[in-house]
Amino acid sequence: MATEMSGSTSTINQNRGGLEGVVAATTALSKVDGTAGRLIYRGYNIHDLAGKASFEEIAYLLWYGKLPTKMELVDLKVQMLEERTLPTAVLQVLNYLPPTAVPMDVLRTAVSAYGAATIQGKPTLDHAIALTERFPLILAAFHRIRNGLEPLEAHPEIGYAANYLYLLTGQMPKEEHVRALDTYLVLLADHGMNASTFTARVIASTESDIASAVVGAIGALKGPLHGGAPSKVKDMLDAIGTEDRAEGWLRDALAHGDRLMGFGHRVYKTQDPRAEELCEMARIADPQQFALAHKVEELALALLKEQKPGRRLYTNVEFYTAVTLSSVGLPGDLFTPTFAASRIAGWTAHILEHVANNRLIRPEAEYTGPIEQQFVPLDER
Amino acid sequence: MATEMSGSTSTINQNRGGLEGVVAATTALSKVDGTAGRLIYRGYNIHDLAGKASFEEIAYLLWYGKLPTKMELVDLKVQMLEERTLPTAVLQVLNYLPPTAVPMDVLRTAVSAYGAATIQGKPTLDHAIALTERFPLILAAFHRIRNGLEPLEAHPEIGYAANYLYLLTGQMPKEEHVRALDTYLVLLADHGMNASTFTARVIASTESDIASAVVGAIGALKGPLHGGAPSKVKDMLDAIGTEDRAEGWLRDALAHGDRLMGFGHRVYKTQDPRAEELCEMARIADPQQFALAHKVEELALALLKEQKPGRRLYTNVEFYTAVTLSSVGLPGDLFTPTFAASRIAGWTAHILEHVANNRLIRPEAEYTGPIEQQFVPLDER
Repeated sequence: MATEMSGSTSTINQNRGGLEGVVAATTALSKVDGTAGRLIYRGYNIHDLAGKASFEEIAYLLWYGKLPTKMELVDLKVQMLEERTLPTAVLQVLNYLPPTAVPMDVLRTAVSAYGAATIQGKPTLDHAIALTERFPLILAAFHRIRNGLEPLEAHPEIGYAANYLYLLTGQMPKEEHVRALDTYLVLLADHGMNASTFTARVIASTESDIASAVVGAIGALKGPLHGGAPSKVKDMLDAIGTEDRAEGWLRDALAHGDRLMGFGHRVYKTQDPRAEELCEMARIADPQQFALAHKVEELALALLKEQKPGRRLYTNVEFYTAVTLSSVGLPGDLFTPTFAASRIAGWTAHILEHVANNRLIRPEAEYTGPIEQQFVPLDER
Repeated sequence: MATEMSGSTSTINQNRGGLEGVVAATTALSKVDGTAGRLIYRGYNIHDLAGKASFEEIAYLLWYGKLPTKMELVDLKVQMLEERTLPTAVLQVLNYLPPTAVPMDVLRTAVSAYGAATIQGKPTLDHAIALTERFPLILAAFHRIRNGLEPLEAHPEIGYAANYLYLLTGQMPKEEHVRALDTYLVLLADHGMNASTFTARVIASTESDIASAVVGAIGALKGPLHGGAPSKVKDMLDAIGTEDRAEGWLRDALAHGDRLMGFGHRVYKTQDPRAEELCEMARIADPQQFALAHKVEELALALLKEQKPGRRLYTNVEFYTAVTLSSVGLPGDLFTPTFAASRIAGWTAHILEHVANNRLIRPEAEYTGPIEQQFVPLDER
């Protein structure tokens, strides 16, 4: 990658090809302190918010810059409820995509169709709210369609997390499931300048619309290096099956050079603060699944310490994401789309923040190809 | 924007908030020399390629790194012809989107649906070819549907540019129209690290799929600061109407503080080499439209020089894009989508180049929000 200085128009390039250490924007939305293992949203430590504020309160915090009063929260919830339907065009798109399609591809397409059908002009807070409310509707509708079921009408009286679970099954969800999912949604709602948020800001910086920016962000979150592969943690836990098989399974995996899923993060050099909170939620949502996961975590960390003494690896957010989302009844291929149903709050807040003081994001490339080639017409080649 | 140095993990930030002057990647695909007004594709000067090589040859050059022999070009064209159909899912999406939808939104949605229905796994050259071939098919199908017409079967024996024009009208296009459009497609196929190409590389860097990256790029190109607003040049020329009205109209516009569309570019500080070539094509495609456009250009440059003596403004690529694409029969709202039908070659080549030596693109943000806020539960707010 870019290791040399480039031509006359470029300044010093000290990054290692991934823009690491390069400040691409300022933001007042969230701060990730990877060294201290600290995450704050607009000044609030994530540990103060998890389990104490709802996803709607956090979306309000990110969008408006302060926590809502009771009345302000009611107003936001009323506005979100008014958006709790899918246009026919979007339902038809969901009907015509193959039932075997990857849910992240379906979400990307349905959000794009939603934008094409309803969103025009510069990004607004109303757009942000309208888009956010659609994410659970799209995911649940597609999940029912692919299982040969009719999409349900959204529930008019429950919160964002509860409505998502309700739309998947048609049953009122258990309180501990709602609490676990709601906390998950709070914890994942923003995370500094990650790749999908950066994508959204780059697209918005061209003065494109908010749906275009969000659709790009969904595509970026789909990548295993970003949205991760939390369903692989679930696959691992399923393969292990019972606590007594855990040590043998993990030792075998390491002996074969396999990577253990759910450990390590590019930014956090210590415990991911979100993992700690999710661990508690997983314990509440499904004690039995939690017991196995916790045993596997302990053993995996001990084995990693034993076998890779130079590297300190910690449990990352994917690990307890898998346990929590599985405990509340979500299938593995909805884990990353559910991440999107949380991060949409952060994406839209970043888009609005960027366009409020816009500058086109257009970096340079260092050209490494040939300079002068003699053109030979096709007939003479 | 980011004007100060940020915290401990960040290196020097010398950019002005838009990553200007920051090298985000190396590329062997194209070099834009804004000072000299020079554009090269893999070593070939754009002036040697325009009018002499077809879009398919240029796509081959970008994808494979060399110009094709006659046999290699035949092989590529055969492969492209095999992709010259739209899956039912994509046609249904086009049918269900509102006929009033913005064509860039439609393209974004249809490409996303195409990806959801057919593309899995890491980006490949076959994906790149399959995606590229679909762009004209999608645009022409939607254009017919919104006009109450049935989409046509693609022509099995003509090139990419000719097939696009054929699919719009059902008529075999004039030779000079094909030549003008083909040259346009050659000229716009790549342009260094512009915002949409950068978007595609950021998305691909997460190890997402090629459709996700291209869908993000479409969203970025839609923005007026990037894909521009070539249809506004057309609107201006239509409003002027005749050569004798040109000077009065332009003087009025400048007196009212209006911006003249089609002049100036962030990168080129001299004549845009693509504008020169397009000027020739516009002359050939429709001499009458050209005469008006050329008169307007001359007058506008003279008036801008007279009224803004400090700034040297040049005709940009948008100006003759509008004239050329209008001359070959395209409506204004297909100008930017047609830009996409050219740039898809560059996007896919950049994606393949990036993933061949991948590193996640994840810059930093400088946090400017509050650090410690005391959380107060909702009941006490």
